[in-house]
Amino acid sequence: MGKKFICLDIGGTKVLGAVFDENNNIVFKSKKKTKVEKGVEKVEEKIIGVIDDLINGSGIKTEEIAGIAAGAPGVINEDTGEIIFAPNLPWRNYDIKSIIESKFKVPFFLGNDANVGMLGEWKYGAAVNKENVIGIFVGTGIGGGLIINNKLFSGPRYLAGELGHMVLNTEGPFCNCGQRGCFEAYASKVAITREIKVQIERGRDTVLKDLMDDDSIIKSKVLKKALDQKDPVALEVMDRAVYYLAAGTGSLVNIFNPDMVVLGGGVLEALGDYIIPQLKRHIKRFALPAVLKGTDIVASKLGDDAILYGALALIKDRVHE
Amino acid sequence: MGKKFICLDIGGTKVLGAVFDENNNIVFKSKKKTKVEKGVEKVEEKIIGVIDDLINGSGIKTEEIAGIAAGAPGVINEDTGEIIFAPNLPWRNYDIKSIIESKFKVPFFLGNDANVGMLGEWKYGAAVNKENVIGIFVGTGIGGGLIINNKLFSGPRYLAGELGHMVLNTEGPFCNCGQRGCFEAYASKVAITREIKVQIERGRDTVLKDLMDDDSIIKSKVLKKALDQKDPVALEVMDRAVYYLAAGTGSLVNIFNPDMVVLGGGVLEALGDYIIPQLKRHIKRFALPAVLKGTDIVASKLGDDAILYGALALIKDRVHE
Repeated sequence: MGKKFICLDIGGTKVLGAVFDENNNIVFKSKKKTKVEKGVEKVEEKIIGVIDDLINGSGIKTEEIAGIAAGAPGVINEDTGEIIFAPNLPWRNYDIKSIIESKFKVPFFLGNDANVGMLGEWKYGAAVNKENVIGIFVGTGIGGGLIINNKLFSGPRYLAGELGHMVLNTEGPFCNCGQRGCFEAYASKVAITREIKVQIERGRDTVLKDLMDDDSIIKSKVLKKALDQKDPVALEVMDRAVYYLAAGTGSLVNIFNPDMVVLGGGVLEALGDYIIPQLKRHIKRFALPAVLKGTDIVASKLGDDAILYGALALIKDRVHE
Repeated sequence: MGKKFICLDIGGTKVLGAVFDENNNIVFKSKKKTKVEKGVEKVEEKIIGVIDDLINGSGIKTEEIAGIAAGAPGVINEDTGEIIFAPNLPWRNYDIKSIIESKFKVPFFLGNDANVGMLGEWKYGAAVNKENVIGIFVGTGIGGGLIINNKLFSGPRYLAGELGHMVLNTEGPFCNCGQRGCFEAYASKVAITREIKVQIERGRDTVLKDLMDDDSIIKSKVLKKALDQKDPVALEVMDRAVYYLAAGTGSLVNIFNPDMVVLGGGVLEALGDYIIPQLKRHIKRFALPAVLKGTDIVASKLGDDAILYGALALIKDRVHE
């Protein structure tokens, strides 16, 4: 009987978990809402709850578990597993590693969600065997992961890859970070939502008026529904977002000369077929032709499971079976 | 008697050469105008002429020479020494290595000028012992060099580090590359010259009217002279250039989380004391505070000799004495 791997994707809204078998197949999944507003201990309880569900639901024994690993947002010391800072989770200098390890008696590993997602795509997804890869993950914000010379690059202080805060227009709209004109102020779900709401306020006729919640960030599925109906506002707003996605991607291609760019995250998972061809057209305006020539631009292969697969890679890299 | 090293900086306007002794000291220098307009063979003649001058002028013997190395603009295969493409020099798939080696019977190494300059600052200049460094070289254009995990990163196809073609404003002024709003369309000498000429054409009162040649790119020394006199047009144009230099540098800091940014090239050599403090002020608007915190921002230490020192590093890295 082979080893099992417990992998988690810890987000601001949900904790997603999966059990992998020794052949890298997902054999069981579980999900819980994070309930961030209830504080550190409640989030911790949810994480432990998901792990318990995975163990009980899949019927595995503790001694079969090779390790537990997770991707989480924020600045994470990938060597110690400490969460230094997380913008959307109530953690500061939080030693989650000790908590999990003392409870389950198996090694625990943690990485930044975009980095772990990049690792997943690189080891098991769209970017297998590529030496230099940029991962751009479009969700609420824009996260980035960098594979440089066959290695994940997270910088000397675990802060590299903040691709979402590259400036695309020095006098552009404010970003949540306080700068103007950031990549994610143009091409994230927050930016897309803002554009749509302005058009609704202007009295534009759009199906999004009925499909969207009043005060929350648009869901990728809702966006897809409106685009499938050729809603003019949805088309207009997405064209604009993809144009800026191409601008940001083009700059990154010029800087890194990568073998591949993988675009992932919820928006790409739902709308990849719509986004990728347009992005490939627009990027010609922003990337140097000679540099762009050798660069594949593809959608994520693992979609919402990228972080789970990346967590699997974290365990396999560090635990010698 | 120790070994000697012949190092060259091959540019669009001049070939600069130096002989280094075994203690990394420059013992002799020579310079010739490149005369690009006269074609490949004339440029080759100039390069060989500078090497001859260095050997004859310093009185060294061929058997003392450990190697010859150079930095040159363009896309260079750093493994074979072939110049694949050079925008300002008449070379396409040009095997300069064989020519030099068959003439002088010593190993020859070649790298992209910005990469070689970065190597110089990293091995002998401002960035010694730093693991992750961004080099930004401001001259006619803007070149870049990247040290990642203690290694020069030039990308899978020797094209990485085209920092000058990162977009800072998607609808900005045209760049020589054909894109709009590139970093170097705002902060290079070409951009600075364009801004000054527009102000002169508008009839603004400026000492630059007399100091500048009509149809050439402004010299850094001329710019310094005008700034020293507090010329209003020079001040205005430089403030604008430094603001965009901060925007580009800030984005790069967010992407790489480096230990250090080294700013070099002719403009910094002449105006570093003026530029660096202003840039450090403006960059707070563009870099995430947490990322900026651990990043030193400094002027090049080697100035115009950075490429020569980088060439020295190329020889020392590859020739085992």
